[in-house]
Amino acid sequence: MCENILDSFRIVLVGTLYSGNIGSVCRAMANMGLKDLALVAPRICDDGSDAARMAVHATDILDSKRTFGTLDDAVADCSIVVGTTARGGLYRAHVQEPRELFPELMREAPLGKIALVFGREDKGLTNDEIMRCNRLIRIPVNASYTSINLSQAVLICCYELFLSSGNYEAPSEMSLPVDHRARQRMMEIWRSMLLKIGFMEPEKADHMMQGMQRIFSRGVRTADDAAIMMGVARQIDWYDSECKKEK
Amino acid sequence: MCENILDSFRIVLVGTLYSGNIGSVCRAMANMGLKDLALVAPRICDDGSDAARMAVHATDILDSKRTFGTLDDAVADCSIVVGTTARGGLYRAHVQEPRELFPELMREAPLGKIALVFGREDKGLTNDEIMRCNRLIRIPVNASYTSINLSQAVLICCYELFLSSGNYEAPSEMSLPVDHRARQRMMEIWRSMLLKIGFMEPEKADHMMQGMQRIFSRGVRTADDAAIMMGVARQIDWYDSECKKEK
Repeated sequence: MCENILDSFRIVLVGTLYSGNIGSVCRAMANMGLKDLALVAPRICDDGSDAARMAVHATDILDSKRTFGTLDDAVADCSIVVGTTARGGLYRAHVQEPRELFPELMREAPLGKIALVFGREDKGLTNDEIMRCNRLIRIPVNASYTSINLSQAVLICCYELFLSSGNYEAPSEMSLPVDHRARQRMMEIWRSMLLKIGFMEPEKADHMMQGMQRIFSRGVRTADDAAIMMGVARQIDWYDSECKKEK
Repeated sequence: MCENILDSFRIVLVGTLYSGNIGSVCRAMANMGLKDLALVAPRICDDGSDAARMAVHATDILDSKRTFGTLDDAVADCSIVVGTTARGGLYRAHVQEPRELFPELMREAPLGKIALVFGREDKGLTNDEIMRCNRLIRIPVNASYTSINLSQAVLICCYELFLSSGNYEAPSEMSLPVDHRARQRMMEIWRSMLLKIGFMEPEKADHMMQGMQRIFSRGVRTADDAAIMMGVARQIDWYDSECKKEK
C-alpha cells in the first residue's frame, strides 16, 4: 500500500502541555523517518514558541500536524492502536516491549494505518484511553526512575520502528578486508625487520611473533591497514640502510 | 569489580552549549540506570536554569557531575573511549552501531571504566577528539535528517547500554497461561451455548467452531481470560433459562 512502510505509522500525542516537547517530537520523528503527527486536545501551557525552536529542521512535520478533539477521532482510520504506559495495573497487564511488538507491526503495516499513542507529561494516558488501544507497550527503564520525558519516549519508539522497518542501511566499510596472503606477507616483513633491528633474538623470534600476531590479528582488518603496517616495516628497513650508508 | 555493570560507564559531554541538554541528559541517564556524568569545557550560552528544570528528579546526577578542562582529563582512567559521530570520512570509517558494539563493552566493563563521548550541539567532535577515541559509534538515523538532539543521542546510547546490561527485567504477566484442558472446556461450553441460542445449525457447528477457535486462540491467552469467556457463556445460558421461566 505504501512505498515506505514507515508512512503507515502515526504518532499521536494526547493532552500535551509543553510546546517544546511537540517540537522535539517532530525532530525525533524526522531523524527516524516518520512524518504523520496528530495532537489530541493539547493543553499547551507556554507561549508555543519552543515548538519551532526544538523542531529545528523538522518544521515540515510541525506544519503538517493535525489536531483532533478526541483520541477516537485521531485514530479512527487506524487498524492498530498502540498505547504507551509506564504503569502497571489491571488494564495494563498485557504490555509488551517495543522490540517484542514492532516486528508484528511491520507485518501489519502494509494492510492499514498504525497509531502509537503517547499520554500527558504529568499523568500519561487515562484508563479510558488505554481501553481504546488494542496493543500496549512499555519502554524498558530503570526501576528507580521510570518517568521518561515525552519526546524521549517518542524517540525510543521511533528508533525501534526505524530499525524494525529495515530502512536503515549500515554504513559499509570503505576498504576491503585484508586477505590471508597479504596478512602473511605483512608478518614476514615485520619478522625480518624486527630481527634486523635486534628487537628479538633469532631463537626467540617464533615466540615473540606470536605476540605480534595477536596484536595484528585484532588491529589489522582491512587491506589499507595491512598496507600501512607493511609500509612502516619497509620504511624502518630503508631508514636503517640510509643510516648505515652515512656512517 | 562493580556490583552494577552500568556503574562502569561514564557519559562525557564536550563543549555543550545549552544547559537544558545537560539536564535532559541527566534524566535520560537516570531512566536507564547510569550515574557518572563528565563535562569537558562546557560553553553554556544561556543562564543555566534549564539544567535543573529538565533533569526533573535526576538532580543527584546533575549535582555530582564533574567538569574537566580537556577530553584527555575526563577519560584518563578509562580503558575504552567510545566516540559518537554522525559524519563519515577517513577518521570515521570504522564506525559501528550501538547494538553491534555494546555487547563487547559489557564483556570489557568489569575490567575498567568505559566512556561514551558526545560532541557539541553545533558541530560534534573534532577530528582531534575522534583520534582520542578507540571505538566509534553512529546512531542509525534516517538519511534525510541525520542531526539528532544531543540529549536524544545520549538517550539512545543509554537505552542500548541498559538493554545490553541485562539489568532490565521485563514485567511478567500476572495471570497464568490457560492450559489445554481449560481451553477445551471453554470451547465446549461455548459450542453448547451457541447451539442452544440458535447461533448455528448442528450440521454447521463444526465449521463455525473453527472460526470461534481461531478468534479464541488469538484472544484467550491466560487462565483469567478463559474464566471470563466461560463466565460469559454460562451467563447467557442462565439468562436464557430465566427468560423461559418468566414465560
